[in-house]
Amino acid sequence: MSLTIYRKAHFNAAHRLFRKDWSDAKNKEVFGKCSNPNYHGHNYELEVGITGKIDPETGFLINLDVLKQIIKEEVEDALDHKNLNLEVPEFKTLNPTVENIALVVWNKLRKKIDAKYGLEIKLYETPRNYVVYSG
Amino acid sequence: MSLTIYRKAHFNAAHRLFRKDWSDAKNKEVFGKCSNPNYHGHNYELEVGITGKIDPETGFLINLDVLKQIIKEEVEDALDHKNLNLEVPEFKTLNPTVENIALVVWNKLRKKIDAKYGLEIKLYETPRNYVVYSG
Amino acid sequence: MSLTIYRKAHFNAAHRLFRKDWSDAKNKEVFGKCSNPNYHGHNYELEVGITGKIDPETGFLINLDVLKQIIKEEVEDALDHKNLNLEVPEFKTLNPTVENIALVVWNKLRKKIDAKYGLEIKLYETPRNYVVYSG
Amino acid sequence: MSLTIYRKAHFNAAHRLFRKDWSDAKNKEVFGKCSNPNYHGHNYELEVGITGKIDPETGFLINLDVLKQIIKEEVEDALDHKNLNLEVPEFKTLNPTVENIALVVWNKLRKKIDAKYGLEIKLYETPRNYVVYSG
Amino acid sequence: MSLTIYRKAHFNAAHRLFRKDWSDAKNKEVFGKCSNPNYHGHNYELEVGITGKIDPETGFLINLDVLKQIIKEEVEDALDHKNLNLEVPEFKTLNPTVENIALVVWNKLRKKIDAKYGLEIKLYETPRNYVVYSG
Amino acid sequence: MSLTIYRKAHFNAAHRLFRKDWSDAKNKEVFGKCSNPNYHGHNYELEVGITGKIDPETGFLINLDVLKQIIKEEVEDALDHKNLNLEVPEFKTLNPTVENIALVVWNKLRKKIDAKYGLEIKLYETPRNYVVYSG
Repeated sequence: MSLTIYRKAHFNAAHRLFRKDWSDAKNKEVFGKCSNPNYHGHNYELEVGITGKIDPETGFLINLDVLKQIIKEEVEDALDHKNLNLEVPEFKTLNPTVENIALVVWNKLRKKIDAKYGLEIKLYETPRNYVVYSG
Repeated sequence: MSLTIYRKAHFNAAHRLFRKDWSDAKNKEVFGKCSNPNYHGHNYELEVGITGKIDPETGFLINLDVLKQIIKEEVEDALDHKNLNLEVPEFKTLNPTVENIALVVWNKLRKKIDAKYGLEIKLYETPRNYVVYSG
Repeated sequence: MSLTIYRKAHFNAAHRLFRKDWSDAKNKEVFGKCSNPNYHGHNYELEVGITGKIDPETGFLINLDVLKQIIKEEVEDALDHKNLNLEVPEFKTLNPTVENIALVVWNKLRKKIDAKYGLEIKLYETPRNYVVYSG
Repeated sequence: MSLTIYRKAHFNAAHRLFRKDWSDAKNKEVFGKCSNPNYHGHNYELEVGITGKIDPETGFLINLDVLKQIIKEEVEDALDHKNLNLEVPEFKTLNPTVENIALVVWNKLRKKIDAKYGLEIKLYETPRNYVVYSG
Repeated sequence: MSLTIYRKAHFNAAHRLFRKDWSDAKNKEVFGKCSNPNYHGHNYELEVGITGKIDPETGFLINLDVLKQIIKEEVEDALDHKNLNLEVPEFKTLNPTVENIALVVWNKLRKKIDAKYGLEIKLYETPRNYVVYSG
Repeated sequence: MSLTIYRKAHFNAAHRLFRKDWSDAKNKEVFGKCSNPNYHGHNYELEVGITGKIDPETGFLINLDVLKQIIKEEVEDALDHKNLNLEVPEFKTLNPTVENIALVVWNKLRKKIDAKYGLEIKLYETPRNYVVYSG
C-alpha cells in the first residue's frame, strides 16, 4: 500500500550540447542549434517523487520541509543560475542533455534520500519536452 | 492491452494538521504552520484514473458521465466546502494530510467502481505538491 | 513608454463568507456553501504587477528581489496558513470575499510600493475564478 | 536503468460518437450530445513518451527532431484539421472515442519507432479528461 | 475604484472557415486547412470578466452563481457540442472565426448582464491563440 | 469596436545581467546570481497581441499565418538558442533584462506589423515572472 508524493522545484541554467572530441561540423550535425558554442538556456522545472508508506503517527510519507531542503542543497544550489558545462563538475565530461541532467539530479538526490523510499524525478527542459527517471 | 482514462474534479476545503494527544508545542514542531488551530485551506484538484479494457461495442473504457456522478457523490458532496477535521467522519481520528486524504478518497471511490477496473488517483494539495495512489 | 512587470506569489488560507448581523438562513441564502460556519479554504495565487519606466542604468523597472520581499512581508506573512476571518485584522468586520481580499492586498502593497509606480494585482481564488484590481 | 522522454504535439479535429447499426435514439442514449450528427470537435493535446537507454555517445535517448518528424507525419498530417469519422480511414468502422483515438495513434507510431524503445502516449481530449496507453 | 472578476467556462464545437460566395480554391487560399468542408473542431476555453463596484453589503461584485447560470444558458447551451456553421443561427451568414465567435458570445452575454457592469471576454480557440474583446 | 488577438511563441536563450563599466562586485551586488559571468538561461514564452478591427470579408483581424511568420523571422530566428549578450546586436550595449528584451522584441515586431494595428507583447522569463509592454 505505497503512495508517491511529489514536490516541485526549478532552476534556470545555460548549457550547450557538444563533444570535445568531435569537429564543429559533427557537433552541429548531431546537436543542431543546441551546440551553439556561446550557449543557450532553459527554465528547468523539476518534480521529485518519493514513494513509501505513510507514517501512521504523523500521516506523512516524508516531511516535505526536509525534502524541500534536500532539493535546495543538492539541486538548486548546485545548478540554479549556472552554466552547466563550465560550472557543474558532473558535466565536465558528460554532455548536459536533459536525459543526463535527469540522471545527475537523481543520483544526487538518491544519496540524500533514505533508502527505504523509492525516488522518481520528472524534469521539464521546456514546457514541451521532459523526462521521467526512477533509477 | 489495457488503457487508463483520467477525469479531473476538484474540491475546496479547510483543515489543520495535528494530533489531539500531542501538546501544542509538539504539533507546532512537527506540523509547523499547518497546525494552526484556526485552520487554513486548499483547492484540492483531483484526477481519477480508471484502468481497463475498451468495450468493443461502445469504444468506451467506462462511461465518463457515470464516473463523473460517482466522483460528485463520493468526493465532491462529501468534501467540498467542508472543514475536513470537523465535518468529515473519516478524519475524526485521522490526520488530514494530503497523503491520508488520498487514501480516503481512493477507498471511497474503490467501493463504487466496478472491481474489474484498476483505480489510481492524483491529488494536488497545491499547484506545487501532489500525491499519486493506486491501492 | 511604460511597461508592467508581474511577479507571482501564493498563500493558502481558510475563510467563510457571512455577515454577523444576518441570520444563518440569510447567510446560507446569499453565500451558499461558502457560509459554512466551520470554514473552507483555498490556494490563493497572486500576481503583482508594477507599472513604470525602465531605469536606464540597470535595465530594471523595479528590483524583483525587493518586490518579492515586500510581497512576503505584507501578504504571505500576513495571510498564509491563516484563518482570514479570525486572524487577519482587516477581515474582523469585512467579509473575506475574493473581491475584498484583493482590495486588502492591494492596499497593503500600495503603502510599501513607491508612489511613482502603478500597481495592479490579479488574485486567483481557484483556477476557475479570479479578480483584477488596480486601484 | 531506462528513462522516458516525452515530446508534446497537438491536433484539432471534428468527430461524433455513434454506431451506424444503432438507432438515433440508442446513439443519443449512450453517447449523449457527443453523438450530434453534425459533429463537434476538440483540441487534442498529445504527449509521446519513448522509453530506452541513453546513447553514451550523444547523451540522447532518441533524437527529438527525428521523433518530432515521425509525430508530424504519422499523427499531425493524418489527423489535424480533419473530420475523424469521414476522413481518417481507421475510423471508418471504429468509433472515434478518445480511447480508440489513443489506440490508433499508438499503433501508427509503434510502426515507426524502433522496437528497442518502449512507447507510451497521453492524449488529452479536453483539459479535463485524457487517456494513457502503452500497448 | 472598480474591480474585475473573471469566471471560466468552456465549450467544444466543430466549425469550418469559408464564404459561400467564394470558390473552393479561394477559400482554401485564404483559410487554408481551416476551410476543410468536413469541419474540424476545438475546445473553446472562455473567461468572462465583469467590471463594477463591490456591493458593500455582501462584498460581492456580482453573484458568481448567477453569472455561471447566465454563461450556461447563453453560451454553453447554445454552443457546446454544436456545429457552429450548421446549428448556431448567428453563424448562418457569419464566418465562425475566433474573432467572430468572441463578438457573438459577448453580444449574447451583454444582453443578460446588468448595464451597470462592464463586460470583457477572453476566448481561447487553442492553448496557443486567443482573443480579448470588451465591446 | 476593436478586439485583440494573441498568438503564442517561444525561444530559449542564455544571458547574463551586468554592466561592463561596473566592477564585478557592483554587478554582483545589483544583479546577484543573474550576473554570473558564465551565463544562465531561460525558456522565454511570448504572447503577441494585435489590436484592430475585424475584416468583414474574412472575419479575421489579421491572418495568423502571416503573424506567425513575422514572429518567426523577427523573434525566433533572431533570439532562439542564442546567447543574448554575445550574439544579438541589440544587447551589445543594452543589459538583457526581461524588460529590455520586451522592448527589443516589441520594436522589432512594430516595424513589421501594419501601423493600423495596435501591438502588445507579454514576455514570460520564467513561469513566475513576466512583463507586458504596449509601446
